[in-house]
Amino acid sequence: MRYSQMLIPTLKEDPSEAEVLSHKLMLRAGMIRKLAAGIYSYLPLAQRVLRKTEQIIREEMNRAGAQEVTLPFVQPAEIWQKSGRWNVYGKELMRLKDRNNRDFCLGPTHEEVVTELVKNEVTSYRQLPLNLYQIHIKFRDEMRPRFGIMRAREFVMKDAYSFDVDEKRAEESYQRMYQAYHNIFKRCGLTFRAVEADTGPIGGNFSHEFMVLAETGEDSIFSCNRCDYAASGDKAETGKAEDGSADNLSLGELKSVRTPNKRTVEEVTQFLKVKPEQLIKTLIFQEGDNTIAALIRGDHEINELKLQNLLKTEDLFLASDEAIEKVTKAPKGFAGPVGLDIKVFADNSLKGMKNFVTGGNEKDAHLVNVNLERDFQVDSFCDLRFAAEGDSCPRCDHGQLVMSRGIEVGHIFKLGTKYSEALGAKFLDDKGKAKYMVMGCYGIGVGRTVAASIEQNHDENGIIFPVSIAPFEVIIVSVKPKSPEVKDASERIYAALLNAGVDVILDDRDERPGIKFKDADLIGIPLRITVGAKVKDGYVDIKLRKSREAVLVKVEEIVEKVREMINSD
Amino acid sequence: MRYSQMLIPTLKEDPSEAEVLSHKLMLRAGMIRKLAAGIYSYLPLAQRVLRKTEQIIREEMNRAGAQEVTLPFVQPAEIWQKSGRWNVYGKELMRLKDRNNRDFCLGPTHEEVVTELVKNEVTSYRQLPLNLYQIHIKFRDEMRPRFGIMRAREFVMKDAYSFDVDEKRAEESYQRMYQAYHNIFKRCGLTFRAVEADTGPIGGNFSHEFMVLAETGEDSIFSCNRCDYAASGDKAETGKAEDGSADNLSLGELKSVRTPNKRTVEEVTQFLKVKPEQLIKTLIFQEGDNTIAALIRGDHEINELKLQNLLKTEDLFLASDEAIEKVTKAPKGFAGPVGLDIKVFADNSLKGMKNFVTGGNEKDAHLVNVNLERDFQVDSFCDLRFAAEGDSCPRCDHGQLVMSRGIEVGHIFKLGTKYSEALGAKFLDDKGKAKYMVMGCYGIGVGRTVAASIEQNHDENGIIFPVSIAPFEVIIVSVKPKSPEVKDASERIYAALLNAGVDVILDDRDERPGIKFKDADLIGIPLRITVGAKVKDGYVDIKLRKSREAVLVKVEEIVEKVREMINSD
Repeated sequence: MRYSQMLIPTLKEDPSEAEVLSHKLMLRAGMIRKLAAGIYSYLPLAQRVLRKTEQIIREEMNRAGAQEVTLPFVQPAEIWQKSGRWNVYGKELMRLKDRNNRDFCLGPTHEEVVTELVKNEVTSYRQLPLNLYQIHIKFRDEMRPRFGIMRAREFVMKDAYSFDVDEKRAEESYQRMYQAYHNIFKRCGLTFRAVEADTGPIGGNFSHEFMVLAETGEDSIFSCNRCDYAASGDKAETGKAEDGSADNLSLGELKSVRTPNKRTVEEVTQFLKVKPEQLIKTLIFQEGDNTIAALIRGDHEINELKLQNLLKTEDLFLASDEAIEKVTKAPKGFAGPVGLDIKVFADNSLKGMKNFVTGGNEKDAHLVNVNLERDFQVDSFCDLRFAAEGDSCPRCDHGQLVMSRGIEVGHIFKLGTKYSEALGAKFLDDKGKAKYMVMGCYGIGVGRTVAASIEQNHDENGIIFPVSIAPFEVIIVSVKPKSPEVKDASERIYAALLNAGVDVILDDRDERPGIKFKDADLIGIPLRITVGAKVKDGYVDIKLRKSREAVLVKVEEIVEKVREMINSD
Repeated sequence: MRYSQMLIPTLKEDPSEAEVLSHKLMLRAGMIRKLAAGIYSYLPLAQRVLRKTEQIIREEMNRAGAQEVTLPFVQPAEIWQKSGRWNVYGKELMRLKDRNNRDFCLGPTHEEVVTELVKNEVTSYRQLPLNLYQIHIKFRDEMRPRFGIMRAREFVMKDAYSFDVDEKRAEESYQRMYQAYHNIFKRCGLTFRAVEADTGPIGGNFSHEFMVLAETGEDSIFSCNRCDYAASGDKAETGKAEDGSADNLSLGELKSVRTPNKRTVEEVTQFLKVKPEQLIKTLIFQEGDNTIAALIRGDHEINELKLQNLLKTEDLFLASDEAIEKVTKAPKGFAGPVGLDIKVFADNSLKGMKNFVTGGNEKDAHLVNVNLERDFQVDSFCDLRFAAEGDSCPRCDHGQLVMSRGIEVGHIFKLGTKYSEALGAKFLDDKGKAKYMVMGCYGIGVGRTVAASIEQNHDENGIIFPVSIAPFEVIIVSVKPKSPEVKDASERIYAALLNAGVDVILDDRDERPGIKFKDADLIGIPLRITVGAKVKDGYVDIKLRKSREAVLVKVEEIVEKVREMINSD
């Protein structure tokens, strides 16, 4: 490809619409342009990166035994009504009516369509396992589309759905996808972690997120510094806090102290001159018609999702000031567990604590030297808080959790029989008995993977693409395209590389070298060959985008050298 | 790929929902399944055929200098309002509103989006020519979706758009696409014709349709039996009818004859004992507020589209009985040109005719021995009729038109500046002057191409795919998969072919040979290798799906033989 013939509208200035780095760089590199909020055109450079990424995904999915299909994007309401999601999906589901006034939606995900298809075509255990995938657009009418193609409304996704005869086989399918995802992100040149994750509104009972590590990531990840435990911020388990340091302490005398207008952890601990970890926060929640209390250390953060999962409810929220006053007989800010007549859930970190501070259930009063068992009872100890850096690993003996930031690029779920039951997808087992198929679903955001790669790999000059997904492997910069010698050598090298199967672009534009170098860096081509004055002596420069290392190479050795450098990426 | 692991739900019976052959065979071969009217899922076999077809298209588009992009499917109303099509497109344009009540539509075509993009990114003649294409879904809310994926609502299309500095360059871009389309359909193994076509509602000033020849085609095509002229039924020109046969005839005496209640060509010619080609029909049309007459031979059919194009109007229709009576002073059925006081357009075939019959402009009366000039004047001779088989070719000297039927799979248009003017897509030319870009647009229905291939290539046993787009090139049928000898040989041949890069499927199912042979024929795999009893002596059978020719081949020569047979397709 010749640069002069390609639409690569690079920008010198940072576009004002861009909030994050990958968005900014993709706009500046002329890869994407916005048509409407969360709706983008992918220009030729982006298209090449997307196609390469898709091809890696396709090869690994096929290798794992999955079969490619294309499922309808415009979907009839009926199947969403059957699964129950027509009513619960909310405004992200883009609904529309056809000319006959029938209800349809734009596919935000394809569990319904694929289950309906498989239900009609698969009747026997002999036809299972089955894993169907597609690489296709999705539409989610996000409230706040942002970050360019990272959280767009219209986006390209690889989604796969597995169908198995039982849980054990479904687990095997899940593991095959887990491995395929590892291979895919590795081949895309990404540094990533697979983390245990919450299943969220898609349902199902187990899931992993594949996170590309990047400081700019929206999500937090906790991973152990000794074993391979890793989990998303929402999901990361805590628990083994009991360090025995309080074992030898004797119990002090329970006392009420005046704390006028001191409500927050900071106010109370400063006033009483104690550390936040010596205070217990008492949070009052409303769960449907019930009121409950959650106890947590002053230096920890409550994780409501964990409490929801524990109580198996989605109907949980912090109680109103009135409700708090009703159960604690005190205004908000002075709640405590002593004398409280509702169910009390305590975070595991409370175990082994002695002589702590709590609210006094009385205006402007706190209690000191509060102790478990002696002063109040806990209904249940459980994991109620967000993990924090330095927490001990929930899996191994001496590991500690380290926090990093990441961008979710893939998500795999064990769905169980949620959709096969809702849509009636049964098969006859080897004894002729009808059973529900056990499903899994597996997604990769294709555009998001590219954006995440940019968030992870860039410098002040622009994008640094890995060879496997770069729009071109090599760029030839002809610094004096009007000199016959330079032009001729550039053309010869271009032809030789094309001939050798190298994916190469020749910058044949009539522009100053500075502009060409800047563009080559900005669009992130891994190898740059500079053809300039030295070509008289039979030499050209090769520069690596990533390491900035430069080498002088003989023109006749160029193909061999380029191959070697590409393969070592 | 192993047949036992693939989702190929073939059907023994013809599905009742299918109206045309390709639809029936695609359902029977387990390639597609309907989700809703005109909305289909593409199963693994169809997916493979589509991917191969897309890849051929991609390669030829790239070779022609076009660049692949992906444009938004969900499009904001604003750009359609700018082009004026928001109001004129009608119900085929699927409209919807997002969560903020903004108007959007699903892309039925992408002139607006691509022109908007190019307008913002291209400012100079140096950036032109440009040809952007995508392979992506479209949605058209057809009143009557039918024929499976031949006329679906959601379908995959390759659409390309070219931008040039002037008409001459635009013509060159058009010719490159013309050639690319030739290459594409040739590589897809199709027998086709490129025909001159009417531009229809998409606008523009010139177009060709690429028609796959098939008896079951919806469209008629006229092509010359001597030169390469070919045109669609609507567009096919006529004109050189003057055969000189009447040159020596002397003019008869104009007479009015009684023709009580004889109105139609058939009634009048039978009654007067003349041939239909001796009678002239006088058709009265309303064009806005004007009334005009069109004269045409009794054995010809008026082509209203030609009359519309001639008059440059879309507001043309046959006059009402009252309007006819007003201008002819006679009831419908007796109109004639003699004494008529409105503009008269005559088909070219009238030139050179003598002594013909026309209506008498009087109830129950016709005129005989009517002659041009002597009895009435014509305002304009022109091409007003549909071509008919046997017409002389409008381009060469001795050719005759032959009619055939076809399926439109591609359409190329010269658009001119229609969209660049509407959306303001200008560039600065080499003198710094702002000009509108000259556009072309070029479509291929990808699924339609596959369906047309099936309409053209099948027999009573099923589909006959050409090698280039077949889901697999070779199928190995293991007739006794439980015999270790057969199983072993099948596996060895399978491995050897895979290794040689042959796209092969092994039918390893535990089914009777008859079922396997039927399925292999139905799904249309070009080469079938049968591994059976003869393998003991080191032989297998290879059968060609198309010619039904069978050869006995030594197992050790199989790879070579298969390669040879594939390449000769």
